[in-house]
Amino acid sequence: MLSKAKIQYIKALEQKKFRQERQEFILEGRKMVLELLKAPGPFRIKELYLQEDFPEPVQSSVAVYISAKEMERISLQSTPSGALAVVEIPKVPLAPPRKDNLYLALDGIRDPGNFGTILRLADWFDLAAVYASPDCVELYNPKTVQSTMGAILRVPVHYTPLAPLLKNCTLPVTGSVLQGGSSINTTFLPCDGIIVLGNESNGISPELLDHIPLKLYIPPYREGSESLNVATAAAIFCAVFRRNLPSLPR
Amino acid sequence: MLSKAKIQYIKALEQKKFRQERQEFILEGRKMVLELLKAPGPFRIKELYLQEDFPEPVQSSVAVYISAKEMERISLQSTPSGALAVVEIPKVPLAPPRKDNLYLALDGIRDPGNFGTILRLADWFDLAAVYASPDCVELYNPKTVQSTMGAILRVPVHYTPLAPLLKNCTLPVTGSVLQGGSSINTTFLPCDGIIVLGNESNGISPELLDHIPLKLYIPPYREGSESLNVATAAAIFCAVFRRNLPSLPR
Repeated sequence: MLSKAKIQYIKALEQKKFRQERQEFILEGRKMVLELLKAPGPFRIKELYLQEDFPEPVQSSVAVYISAKEMERISLQSTPSGALAVVEIPKVPLAPPRKDNLYLALDGIRDPGNFGTILRLADWFDLAAVYASPDCVELYNPKTVQSTMGAILRVPVHYTPLAPLLKNCTLPVTGSVLQGGSSINTTFLPCDGIIVLGNESNGISPELLDHIPLKLYIPPYREGSESLNVATAAAIFCAVFRRNLPSLPR
Repeated sequence: MLSKAKIQYIKALEQKKFRQERQEFILEGRKMVLELLKAPGPFRIKELYLQEDFPEPVQSSVAVYISAKEMERISLQSTPSGALAVVEIPKVPLAPPRKDNLYLALDGIRDPGNFGTILRLADWFDLAAVYASPDCVELYNPKTVQSTMGAILRVPVHYTPLAPLLKNCTLPVTGSVLQGGSSINTTFLPCDGIIVLGNESNGISPELLDHIPLKLYIPPYREGSESLNVATAAAIFCAVFRRNLPSLPR
């Protein structure tokens, strides 16, 4: 049986304060937990709670089987899926961008859903890493974790000030702008480098623009149409850049 | 001053039941309300509430100026933006797809955010209309309306069973599948027709697949990567199809 103190201890990780203090976060969901067990990468599982009817056999020294009722009490989801892990936040050393690799740099992305969706894209399009400005939403926010659908386990995310990163970058640096750039329809695009995406409301911050030699925009096909959501812009950038690879997956 | 009954009357539109009963919905937000006033299209404003410090002059016989406190009481948003309209749900006759136009058909999209984001894309890429299966999330759900960022005013949405629509369609019918299709990287794509997108968890329903001669997929660039979010898949499809147009916007 889970003690009241233990339940509080787990639920506290819903709050950023406790995640930062304890350097732990919650990863929830049957599929994601199984992926974590299979390929933990830099992630260390500190506690693992499985609902007693959990269908797959699990090899883990920290696994604890609990009742559906207990799962409900610790879950951050409205419909718990039967598996919840308390995971140590890994210390991933900042890796500078390497040639022939593609990266995204996120400047002030605030919405957890957007951040998670962009990580899924980075995974799908085999990006080497994602750089995030320190004012981006926190990766270990439960909503972000959830919306990565497991991509959090496969795509390294580095929180770092973007200006020095871009300034010192020897690969092509491009950025998505709403106006004043070159059209992605008519510009020759590199197949590696960093693509900068800006904040949902304000776009890329002015102090970064100087470090982005190639500003690109997705031209609207209809006059008066609104801006694109940043995750859909990211999707289009990834897809269009990736079409330049010498050999495409089929 | 707004009466208690009036506040209840407005707030009731948060519920589907009352939206359907009264054939009204709420459109909120300074920018969207101004767009609605400028180009109402098929939308008729029944009531219009503006915060007393609303900065733009508004020509509307139904405009009522209210205090910030009153706005807070009728708003469905956590941070009211100072403008809220009660709008009649328009009766848009079903328009069959026309040659040289591009359409999306949404099969069971359940998430309001995805639905709204896809409408924004349809607006950006100048799609002629969006067809939605009757089990899609409701367009007039406040969360959907909000996430369209105004595209709801410009893109006609037709709720209609998709099987007969696709079966009788004389334009190219394509669909996004996760496997068993042709890669969008290596397939010659039409520049008009209907692109079918499926439900977030289950994809396109089996009974529709028979009516989709060209099944397409976005190949993953990394093994083991998760599926793409449906709105990001929609973005990639729209962008890639639109690149086939004989003349591209610059």
